[in-house]
Amino acid sequence: MSTTGRTRLSPEERRAQLVALGTEMLSTRPIDEVSVDDIAAAAGISRGLLFHYFATKHDFHVAVATAAAEEMLSHLPIPDPGGDGLEQLRASLGAWIDYVDSHRAPYLSLVRGAMSGDPAMQTLFEWTRARVTARVLEGFGYQPDGPAIVVLAVRGWVGFVEDTVTTWLQGDGIGIERDALLELLERSLLSLIRSALDVAR
Amino acid sequence: MSTTGRTRLSPEERRAQLVALGTEMLSTRPIDEVSVDDIAAAAGISRGLLFHYFATKHDFHVAVATAAAEEMLSHLPIPDPGGDGLEQLRASLGAWIDYVDSHRAPYLSLVRGAMSGDPAMQTLFEWTRARVTARVLEGFGYQPDGPAIVVLAVRGWVGFVEDTVTTWLQGDGIGIERDALLELLERSLLSLIRSALDVAR
Repeated sequence: MSTTGRTRLSPEERRAQLVALGTEMLSTRPIDEVSVDDIAAAAGISRGLLFHYFATKHDFHVAVATAAAEEMLSHLPIPDPGGDGLEQLRASLGAWIDYVDSHRAPYLSLVRGAMSGDPAMQTLFEWTRARVTARVLEGFGYQPDGPAIVVLAVRGWVGFVEDTVTTWLQGDGIGIERDALLELLERSLLSLIRSALDVAR
Repeated sequence: MSTTGRTRLSPEERRAQLVALGTEMLSTRPIDEVSVDDIAAAAGISRGLLFHYFATKHDFHVAVATAAAEEMLSHLPIPDPGGDGLEQLRASLGAWIDYVDSHRAPYLSLVRGAMSGDPAMQTLFEWTRARVTARVLEGFGYQPDGPAIVVLAVRGWVGFVEDTVTTWLQGDGIGIERDALLELLERSLLSLIRSALDVAR
């Protein structure tokens, strides 16, 4: 018997269930085509009840995108302050490339799709980039309020990574092996930090 | 006497006039708030006649955004194949930073605004990035079909530039001088090309 339809879920559980159904659906269609009717049907609830949890379809889509971003971030290993920063960077980048490569359609639809210009999505992207930037800075022993030019360079490197990886995913590898891409991303971070330190000198 | 209202313009002139009025309006409001009624009034024509030149409001907005991107690109000096690549890079980057700094509101509304996720806008951004990438590659003596990893690194550098300059414009300089930003962008390109060549080795 289905655990969805007739089971009485707490409001938190129901909300989480609806969002989880939404992120699942992202693997087969872009976020703006995730239909609240389909989600309500899959959860065995009425369309009206879904709108009890999310005021608008837009709110629901933003909640799904936020959950997808959180899931992506949760796949990055937590840096160990005592460990080797460079080795940890390589492990994180490798895990992230493999994650987006195996979630190509949802990743591209979120970052390049029709909804990507939406103010709430822009805020979510900014928040995600800031989280990644803070984690990289931390991994290299910098404070988030460290030298402005280094913070800006690492922030820009996140843009570099997004852009190269998006191009790579869209172009189906464009003749570049996964390990060569990984090495480019890793070397580029080190050389961008060095460039920023040279400017600060 | 106004040259707009009663003057008989050729279809090409009228179209160009409407687009020019649209790009002017970008300095005071985001593109999605550029109203076709205001544009028609400024040109002294009817709303219906405007729709004779642009099938939809969306088509008009895309034409305005395209003209703004072309204007931005036209401010980049043309590289001289016999000149010093590095010096030309510095001149181009400096001209571009000054251009976007003095067109801050329209630039940010185009690249980060509500319309930025629109498929036609994404195509326009891709086209702009490809043009800039080709020009940078050319300035450094590479062919657009040069080593894939170098092309990808330069493409990613364009993303790095967009991201750092957008952050800089939004944060009102975030304590970084214009010349320090310029130096970071310049050094970052050289070190990213070097990183790509190291990967290819």
